[in-house]
Amino acid sequence: MDATLTSRGTDLATLSLVEAAAAVADGSVTSLALTEACLDRIARHDLGLNTVIWTEAETALEAARKADRARAAGEALGPLHGVPMAHKDMYYQAGRLSTCGSAIRADFRPDYTATVIERLEAAGAITFAGLNMAEFAQNPTGHNRHFGDCLNPWNGDFITGGSSSGSGAAVAARFTFMALGSDTGGSIRLPASCCGVTGLKPTQGRVSRYGAMPLSFSCDNVGPLTRSARDCARVMRVMAGPDPRDRTAAQVPVPDYEAKLDGDLRGTRIGIPDTWFMEDVDEPIMAATEAALAVLQARGATLVRLTLPMIEDIAAYSAILGRCEAAAIHAQWMRERPQDYAIHLSARLFPPLGIPAPYYIEAQSRRGPILRAFAKEVFGAVDLLATPTIPMRIPTRLETDIDAGTPGAVERFMGVSRNTRLLNYLGLPAISVPCGFDDRGLPVGLQLIGRPFGEGRVLHAADALQCDTDWHERMPDLA
Amino acid sequence: MDATLTSRGTDLATLSLVEAAAAVADGSVTSLALTEACLDRIARHDLGLNTVIWTEAETALEAARKADRARAAGEALGPLHGVPMAHKDMYYQAGRLSTCGSAIRADFRPDYTATVIERLEAAGAITFAGLNMAEFAQNPTGHNRHFGDCLNPWNGDFITGGSSSGSGAAVAARFTFMALGSDTGGSIRLPASCCGVTGLKPTQGRVSRYGAMPLSFSCDNVGPLTRSARDCARVMRVMAGPDPRDRTAAQVPVPDYEAKLDGDLRGTRIGIPDTWFMEDVDEPIMAATEAALAVLQARGATLVRLTLPMIEDIAAYSAILGRCEAAAIHAQWMRERPQDYAIHLSARLFPPLGIPAPYYIEAQSRRGPILRAFAKEVFGAVDLLATPTIPMRIPTRLETDIDAGTPGAVERFMGVSRNTRLLNYLGLPAISVPCGFDDRGLPVGLQLIGRPFGEGRVLHAADALQCDTDWHERMPDLA
Repeated sequence: MDATLTSRGTDLATLSLVEAAAAVADGSVTSLALTEACLDRIARHDLGLNTVIWTEAETALEAARKADRARAAGEALGPLHGVPMAHKDMYYQAGRLSTCGSAIRADFRPDYTATVIERLEAAGAITFAGLNMAEFAQNPTGHNRHFGDCLNPWNGDFITGGSSSGSGAAVAARFTFMALGSDTGGSIRLPASCCGVTGLKPTQGRVSRYGAMPLSFSCDNVGPLTRSARDCARVMRVMAGPDPRDRTAAQVPVPDYEAKLDGDLRGTRIGIPDTWFMEDVDEPIMAATEAALAVLQARGATLVRLTLPMIEDIAAYSAILGRCEAAAIHAQWMRERPQDYAIHLSARLFPPLGIPAPYYIEAQSRRGPILRAFAKEVFGAVDLLATPTIPMRIPTRLETDIDAGTPGAVERFMGVSRNTRLLNYLGLPAISVPCGFDDRGLPVGLQLIGRPFGEGRVLHAADALQCDTDWHERMPDLA
Repeated sequence: MDATLTSRGTDLATLSLVEAAAAVADGSVTSLALTEACLDRIARHDLGLNTVIWTEAETALEAARKADRARAAGEALGPLHGVPMAHKDMYYQAGRLSTCGSAIRADFRPDYTATVIERLEAAGAITFAGLNMAEFAQNPTGHNRHFGDCLNPWNGDFITGGSSSGSGAAVAARFTFMALGSDTGGSIRLPASCCGVTGLKPTQGRVSRYGAMPLSFSCDNVGPLTRSARDCARVMRVMAGPDPRDRTAAQVPVPDYEAKLDGDLRGTRIGIPDTWFMEDVDEPIMAATEAALAVLQARGATLVRLTLPMIEDIAAYSAILGRCEAAAIHAQWMRERPQDYAIHLSARLFPPLGIPAPYYIEAQSRRGPILRAFAKEVFGAVDLLATPTIPMRIPTRLETDIDAGTPGAVERFMGVSRNTRLLNYLGLPAISVPCGFDDRGLPVGLQLIGRPFGEGRVLHAADALQCDTDWHERMPDLA
């Protein structure tokens, strides 16, 4: 452990989650030191990034001391023992603030705690902050009128991606070893791609949503943003699985994802779709994507060009479910407090009032049959799909500022999530891993897509890529 | 058995289902004789009623002979052994016609068989005809442009009620010992009430819908129309229960409903709602209702006046789910074959295209919480609710003829199902039993409503009423 610590200099916050947990476990680092390192880094750098909505430093430091005492006493340690974490500010914790990035819930303190928070803490994690996010998790950019935009650590003019903006930026800035995000149309994968970190949207139903702010019961997913696929594998094992408090959480056993990460892709067939996902891809994005595919190939994977079935239907339906359900959830506030929504959010919440119910029902009722047909055809031929997470060079905050009336901003909104939202309709697991930088020095993400409950294979391939690349270890200069 | 047969004269078709099954079982009557009696009665009287779309006489007679041979051979007999039945023409039977009362499916022959048909036949029943119905089960009156209106056996000027028009009329006319109907907003209870027979809409999920024409996955129910509550109890035991081919069929055990019919209502609390169901009730309907309640009271029941909670919300939501889902199911035909729908059906299918998806989602997502609160409050205080099935004196076919442009016809449509459709939103079991006649000599129905999966208590009370009344034994004069 010491060699690693030394090679990174003295800033413990720059360790990966797995390294940090190992360092606490073997006694080379205290949980208190890790927690102080995160808090210190936030104190020094967050003013320029705006990733944090609240911190509870004293509570966290006390929890860290307790974790250190537990280790000293020889108690059994969980796989995340003593590791401090900050999460998108929409995971309920009894008595703690949960703003959901909104004015409407600026003072909301729920009286119960999300299952994922309970599971992470039961594994030893320490929760110390709530992170910035798109208002009610509803934009793909990271704009926030109420708490201020979250800035991309690589270049503050550009979007962080959303809606888990603070999660992407805070992990990139090494403010936290992991951050929960949520993904209804790309909200984990987009900030992971924009900020150069690893973000996994699990299979629909893989992770309990109890105590997570609801946006769309059909498409919401809880998942992690981390430094690496290995870190993701560690926390997914802890978070995933059935939950008696969430009947939509699937009764599917959770494998030990981390144990299977051997970097060997021999026998793995990776499909490259020739439609939709690969259309109109900007040149620097395509170059980074192809370089990443070459690495995967060198690790033993077979690349297969293929045409995806029913893709126009999937694309059309993917624009319906989440938006209609969000409008239904917000109906009462839309009537009573319309002035408390940002313009870009009103522009998103109100149009579904013009979507006829029968279209919604059609999208909902065709979902199962389409998924079965898609999975049979595609995953009969390949094990994974690979695409750019975002097909375009990411836009600036100004270029996507609907509230400021920027022409073309709405179209750019849709362009940003073009390659992610279809997987929420299908419910498939998908990860975004860093695969390079574009010509402006902004991170590029590769999206790997698996079959239902195929998180293991997704993480395995992502980890293999990270064996031979160091994109995920690059850090933005925060000076 | 012979005494009963003699008292009714020689027309075996006038036996009740339970009597007919007993007569076959004890050898006093053959299945062949029963089947011939039904076919003969149809041949003599259906020209004036138009209840039947198709018959398969030879197949049925052969099945009857086989049933008689099985009895003669001493084989084990099911509870419906040798009893002939005709059903609403929307229960699929492999290779047999299933018109769904429509032009669009005029030649439709499915390649699989409905679970309920299989279960009835496994219990010994013989299927011999498909009965008239509202086009695609979508009007509460019984009008049908394609096959002609079904006529009320008590007076052909008046509606039979719909959508199971042929089922109500054919049971009333003693053409069949039982008929399957389907109920999405009242379609079993309304024809039962209009035609003077007994019709049960079970709890949502109580009976498998596999192989039944779908109209609304949220509100569709399969159920029987029979001469009596006892007949209903017999067939419900056969039909109900889980079905691996229909995941919406509830995993709830099926009691022996018939064994519990003892006519004793001591300890049974029956609630009379003072709102909605009892508002604007026509005088002859109210008189018949009160007379029936007095009979129930004399049998030991306690009558409790009570106010139902959330009834305006329930009424509003009950108008949304079924209509929107029907429009979604019919979307493709609505685009491709609009000329093949009757005007009144187009007037029902197209308006949901103006219902916003978020309203549908709201109606859907509030359904569970509303049901739980309603059941807790209401069924904490009473065991059953009693209301008129139809609060108005039933209208004529002309008064409700939307296709002919009758002023007020649409309003009368809604008035007819005013007291039934709310139970489809709530998913509660409800029966309509004959309780008298109005001043024009048309039957009046009493609706008894139970708690979820409380069919047993509903049937028990309905049977108790029929112990002391003979409304269900009255037959229209078909001469």
